[in-house]
Amino acid sequence: MSDFKQKALDYHAKPTPGKISVELTKPAETVKDLALAYSPGVAEPVREIAANPDNAYKYTAKGNLVAVISNGTAILGLGNLGPLASKPVMEGKALLFKRFAGLDAIDIEVSHRTPEEFINTVANIADTFGGINLEDIKAPECFEIEQELIKRCNVPVFHDDQHGTAIVTAAGMLNALEIQGKALHDVTIVCMGAGAAAVACMELLIKCGAQRERIYMLDRRGVIHTRRDDLTEHKKLFANNTDKRTLEDVMDGADVFVGVSGPDVLPPETLKLMAANPVVFACSNPDPEIKPELAHGVRDDLIMATGRSDYPNQVNNVLCFPFIFRGALDVRATKINDEMKVAAVDAIRNIAKQPVPDAVLKACDCTSLTFGKEYIIPKPMDARLRTEVSRAVAQAAIDSGVAGMVKLPKGYMQ
Amino acid sequence: MSDFKQKALDYHAKPTPGKISVELTKPAETVKDLALAYSPGVAEPVREIAANPDNAYKYTAKGNLVAVISNGTAILGLGNLGPLASKPVMEGKALLFKRFAGLDAIDIEVSHRTPEEFINTVANIADTFGGINLEDIKAPECFEIEQELIKRCNVPVFHDDQHGTAIVTAAGMLNALEIQGKALHDVTIVCMGAGAAAVACMELLIKCGAQRERIYMLDRRGVIHTRRDDLTEHKKLFANNTDKRTLEDVMDGADVFVGVSGPDVLPPETLKLMAANPVVFACSNPDPEIKPELAHGVRDDLIMATGRSDYPNQVNNVLCFPFIFRGALDVRATKINDEMKVAAVDAIRNIAKQPVPDAVLKACDCTSLTFGKEYIIPKPMDARLRTEVSRAVAQAAIDSGVAGMVKLPKGYMQ
Repeated sequence: MSDFKQKALDYHAKPTPGKISVELTKPAETVKDLALAYSPGVAEPVREIAANPDNAYKYTAKGNLVAVISNGTAILGLGNLGPLASKPVMEGKALLFKRFAGLDAIDIEVSHRTPEEFINTVANIADTFGGINLEDIKAPECFEIEQELIKRCNVPVFHDDQHGTAIVTAAGMLNALEIQGKALHDVTIVCMGAGAAAVACMELLIKCGAQRERIYMLDRRGVIHTRRDDLTEHKKLFANNTDKRTLEDVMDGADVFVGVSGPDVLPPETLKLMAANPVVFACSNPDPEIKPELAHGVRDDLIMATGRSDYPNQVNNVLCFPFIFRGALDVRATKINDEMKVAAVDAIRNIAKQPVPDAVLKACDCTSLTFGKEYIIPKPMDARLRTEVSRAVAQAAIDSGVAGMVKLPKGYMQ
Repeated sequence: MSDFKQKALDYHAKPTPGKISVELTKPAETVKDLALAYSPGVAEPVREIAANPDNAYKYTAKGNLVAVISNGTAILGLGNLGPLASKPVMEGKALLFKRFAGLDAIDIEVSHRTPEEFINTVANIADTFGGINLEDIKAPECFEIEQELIKRCNVPVFHDDQHGTAIVTAAGMLNALEIQGKALHDVTIVCMGAGAAAVACMELLIKCGAQRERIYMLDRRGVIHTRRDDLTEHKKLFANNTDKRTLEDVMDGADVFVGVSGPDVLPPETLKLMAANPVVFACSNPDPEIKPELAHGVRDDLIMATGRSDYPNQVNNVLCFPFIFRGALDVRATKINDEMKVAAVDAIRNIAKQPVPDAVLKACDCTSLTFGKEYIIPKPMDARLRTEVSRAVAQAAIDSGVAGMVKLPKGYMQ
């Protein structure tokens, strides 16, 4: 067994199994404590909540509690291994929620036969939580599942594999294009992959200004075009009225490549076909669509991002999901809407453009970071993400009318 | 607002809402930590669990995690106030699980239209947890719900309002009868109330030796007898072939009264009708079926228990549920069966008969405790419950073949 594999297993097994626990936030030592925490004292908050459901935010942990929910049908890049096998990932996500945003998060793994059964199950337990983060659910079911749950739940529902990825990708992309002197409105985009993340990334780029007809999406069978008769509903939205059929066809003169597919699918020769000053996001993890050293070897006018922490410009969902939930929950948003997603994009972009405080450099283990080709998005360890992104998201929720509050709490995230 | 009410609300609201949080049990500070906790390291335990589901107990928090699940249809004595209003109680139960047994417990409140939908919802999320504690679900639905979930889930399912109450009642009753010089097999029992707790208490007393035909159960319409045509399936099990119709009829010469009904329904004159050396468990909370001072005023040969902490002999579920789950989870029991319940009864009984260590007296704020009329069951603060009851339950699970282990872990609860 490799040293890293053993370390990873040991980390999960020792000294106690797993990564999270439930702890008490109130005294529970004496008989008097317990008379307040449970019978008879607990009857008081019960009555208050029965009289006004909003009081659940006042007297229970609901307002700081996120459910991380999966059915295990698309675990990381490992495929459909079932709900139980997804548990370490969901606990890991819960760990990230706590570590980065101070949110209490608990994993729920769901067995089910049909998407409807999954939807019913989650909708039935949704009021327990302040928000629901869906995770590792395969396409195309994930689209219907998320849409239906958003309709049925009173709390925000967010499929991070779609929108977390899209927000961080859009933030990095807009900054990269700015550095390359291009506008999103004018660029030709090749999207390799047509799954949940691909669709969400392209939709959000369109909301940020990209033109749908200048996007070429590819699945395993090549370019998605209007004459194909094998397209799911979501792929149809990206069917291009074009004669181009291959990756080479669409990469010829393209400005942007977004890879959310698999390792090593972008040959260096194909990269050479792109327009001057291209942007390549090779987000397949751990092995990107093209290795950065290979890409830089054939082009020196490139800006490149990957999903890896050991190269510059890591596209990492953790830049977004803890804070989009932090902001949403802090103003009791009922939805995470497009306005909040775009606010997160702008906030993440902006952090990368600001001078980096020494404390952040130290936390990131960097000597210097300057906005440019090798630093288009903030580092995950940048503590400004929590304040800036959460505040922007919370404000956008208020401005777009989905918040339960009319203004930010005084001094919020100052 | 009363002082206690204000204290109870403040306890729940300040400094943060609610009583529980989710915390990390593993380091999550550095980039290296996170590479083990999440991608890419987390793929290793995922693969191990996909290969063998048992590995979930090795690499995730599952084995120490209990779900406290309610639909809010019978919250304390407050009635059907809906799932959200039950949240403070379920969080309170989670607090007790942690406080007394070190178990991680999280509350889940379930909305649903039919019992089947509740069952499906819980069954679909059950694998997330090491065990499921059902709570505050009204009769008669609770019987079907529990039975069906026990069939469908791979982890122990236990409706505490039924069996936790039954176990503690049986332990106290057997000790009380021993002190009164009576045998369970010979006594006539009056059970006032016919809900979930009443049915479970009587069934467990029968398993411990009581005779079904010597039990008289009463609901709002009086004695449950074979000529009534308004009985639910569970009440039918206690339909007595008798001409007795009223509480007075059945109390005449009875040895045991068990009240799981409502306040002040047992008049002192009726108590006088009982046989010599009777046992009265008046468990309605906070106001018992008869006040102890009133009962002792009319009879001096009485042993009395209530649900209250301010009288001797408190029948409190917390003597049982944390430890029945502790024992069950520690040997990976798939069920909580009758053998485990009876083992818990015996262990609880036995603790009350042992000399009380000074540390326990101090924790209970007592100067002395001696097995007898005023001390038939242990105090909730008695730390021996955790070791003795958990061990007895775990051993019974092994002996009855429902454990995932063939013997107790070495030195378990020594």
